[in-house]
Amino acid sequence: MTVTFARRTEFLKKSEIREILKITQRPEVISFAGGLPAPELFPVEEMKHIAVKVLEESGSQALQYSTTEGFEPLRKQIAARMNARFKTVVQPANVLITSGSQQALDFSGKLFLNAGDVVLCESPTYLAAISAFSAYEPRFMEVPTDNKGIIIAELEKILQTVANIKLVYVIPDFQNPTGRTWSLERRKQFIKVISKYEVPVIEDNPYGELRYEGDLLPAIKAFDSKGLVIFVSTFSKTFCPGLRIGWIAADIRFIEKYVLLKQGADLHTSSISQREISMYMEVYNFEEHIQRIIKVYKQRRDAMINAMQEYFAGEIRFNRPHGGLFTWVVLPEQVNAVALLNRCLQHNVAFVPGDSFFPTRKVENTFRLNYSNMPEEQIWEGIRRLAMVIKEY
Amino acid sequence: MTVTFARRTEFLKKSEIREILKITQRPEVISFAGGLPAPELFPVEEMKHIAVKVLEESGSQALQYSTTEGFEPLRKQIAARMNARFKTVVQPANVLITSGSQQALDFSGKLFLNAGDVVLCESPTYLAAISAFSAYEPRFMEVPTDNKGIIIAELEKILQTVANIKLVYVIPDFQNPTGRTWSLERRKQFIKVISKYEVPVIEDNPYGELRYEGDLLPAIKAFDSKGLVIFVSTFSKTFCPGLRIGWIAADIRFIEKYVLLKQGADLHTSSISQREISMYMEVYNFEEHIQRIIKVYKQRRDAMINAMQEYFAGEIRFNRPHGGLFTWVVLPEQVNAVALLNRCLQHNVAFVPGDSFFPTRKVENTFRLNYSNMPEEQIWEGIRRLAMVIKEY
Repeated sequence: MTVTFARRTEFLKKSEIREILKITQRPEVISFAGGLPAPELFPVEEMKHIAVKVLEESGSQALQYSTTEGFEPLRKQIAARMNARFKTVVQPANVLITSGSQQALDFSGKLFLNAGDVVLCESPTYLAAISAFSAYEPRFMEVPTDNKGIIIAELEKILQTVANIKLVYVIPDFQNPTGRTWSLERRKQFIKVISKYEVPVIEDNPYGELRYEGDLLPAIKAFDSKGLVIFVSTFSKTFCPGLRIGWIAADIRFIEKYVLLKQGADLHTSSISQREISMYMEVYNFEEHIQRIIKVYKQRRDAMINAMQEYFAGEIRFNRPHGGLFTWVVLPEQVNAVALLNRCLQHNVAFVPGDSFFPTRKVENTFRLNYSNMPEEQIWEGIRRLAMVIKEY
Repeated sequence: MTVTFARRTEFLKKSEIREILKITQRPEVISFAGGLPAPELFPVEEMKHIAVKVLEESGSQALQYSTTEGFEPLRKQIAARMNARFKTVVQPANVLITSGSQQALDFSGKLFLNAGDVVLCESPTYLAAISAFSAYEPRFMEVPTDNKGIIIAELEKILQTVANIKLVYVIPDFQNPTGRTWSLERRKQFIKVISKYEVPVIEDNPYGELRYEGDLLPAIKAFDSKGLVIFVSTFSKTFCPGLRIGWIAADIRFIEKYVLLKQGADLHTSSISQREISMYMEVYNFEEHIQRIIKVYKQRRDAMINAMQEYFAGEIRFNRPHGGLFTWVVLPEQVNAVALLNRCLQHNVAFVPGDSFFPTRKVENTFRLNYSNMPEEQIWEGIRRLAMVIKEY
């Protein structure tokens, strides 16, 4: 005998971003590559207080095994916040706490996908969702999108003609990687088509609350009369990622299955971290905390957009996102973003080439920029260098 | 279309233990059912100090995203402890931090198992490992065991004749559910056969350090010259389970793959929890902490064994474990442990029927008892009631 791995491992590849991130950890690099929140906004002082308070009030429960579904008060707080902000109608029993929203994506692949099944996604889409689903050996199909979201006629054409579509994966708010947000109209049209074909939807919404202008839009889940939408989110961007707390909000028939998957996968998410976030929301004003983040990120977005407007010349298009952490740059067709990155790294500036965000197409002339993790001066300087390298190219 | 789940979901079932645990959460129940560590031994006061210290010294890193492999100082501490206590030769690079050892089991199924592949395990074996592997649709085969571990001749017979064996899963130290420990001789014979057939082994060792008598034995991994043994452990029993910190220690060729699986599954384990455990081991004496646990659990084991010797009559056999959290009771063949449990619950005493620990066989006359989570008086009283119900039966 020899050691052999399962077939699914052939579909796994190293996350390009995480590999780039390793290079860009050198302090001299201005990195627009990661998706890191600004650590200076983490409520470190408050967390000291909270950590002690949780241990004082419920130390032995906080350190003990707990239920797979999650800490009940936190499930209530999440349901209430979702309903207030995204117009959903979610009960605490609809909420399962996960170890970050990445785990929610992994479980979604595990729950719905046999090898060869089809996953529909936006084009481009979030690359870590591609990684999560890939372990279940699906076939991806990219649905054409415009600035208002998935193009409904294209979606319906695919739903009509393609067999074994098991999942539709979308990020309607400040999408990773493009920063785009679906219009209200498009959300309604989308759910109408989805309800007709009755296919489960993963609505991934890690950034929705980080809106810098305009009003919050209802989640697609808000229009989900048939219980087909599985809403996935996280505290990683509104609080901090180090605690690894995310959640799934979905119809009970789905939650029951997700709970079984979670039992087998890691029993439950950290008892103490769940209690800490819950306690933070009880003791402090979470809205104010989010407003502080919004204020800083808005300035950084503005800096990046202004710098690109000032320095970029010629045929370079980019998005002006209304929220979230990312913008997306489209270069002239002949430019290869991977080659460009290699030159940029020599000038200590980094981004993520867009290629990895397209699961099936070969698109070489795009890249993603993150603006949440760098102060404004660095953003200006980084974009200046980037523009210079592009010009040379 | 209608919503359909992946085929693997047909193999998932609710953990019987977790369902029983829900019933037994009523305070009047004397529960020997769970596998819970004693919460009164959690270092709550020390953790307050540690939580503040971690946030003071590295708050923004502790709350930020971190590497998939885990916190480097913790990987070093784990490797050093393993090598000192279990005679392994493990480098920090061989260690991947997981979200509890349950996640290590899930990843092991994900890494090695295609549908229909064979997993060999002890008979009986840990039921949550059965759940974790089941998601990958394997065929289980139980290898006969005696009080010294897996019976080597039986193992070899299976390895010789059965195709597609991809994994051997064993718990050589204070096994869950039986409390049995493999002899040194058996470990050496085992690795010899494994090396001949070159099949990966999961050595699950959550309890090994909790030895109440005799000397620690070398891990099977200590004899693993071909790098086939994947050692899996956790801080859940020696520290506390609420933080969800476990690990895999294995050959680099395996760790590389596990890292890819973890990237897709949850990016990384809680940054702050990893730093807290690492800091605890730096600031406090972890050995002393383990000695405190051992002292209490030994008394509880003694109480349980003594109570069973005093109260149990007739043909009831049970193990006297040298460590760990569990003992195992074998009743006369005609007794059904599930029916017995139902009667016991009326007398507010609970255990886990043995049936769920046999993935393929139907064995109705056994049950598992946990002694770590109840004080001695309760253990005496619980065993008294249990004996009474058995007598009535």
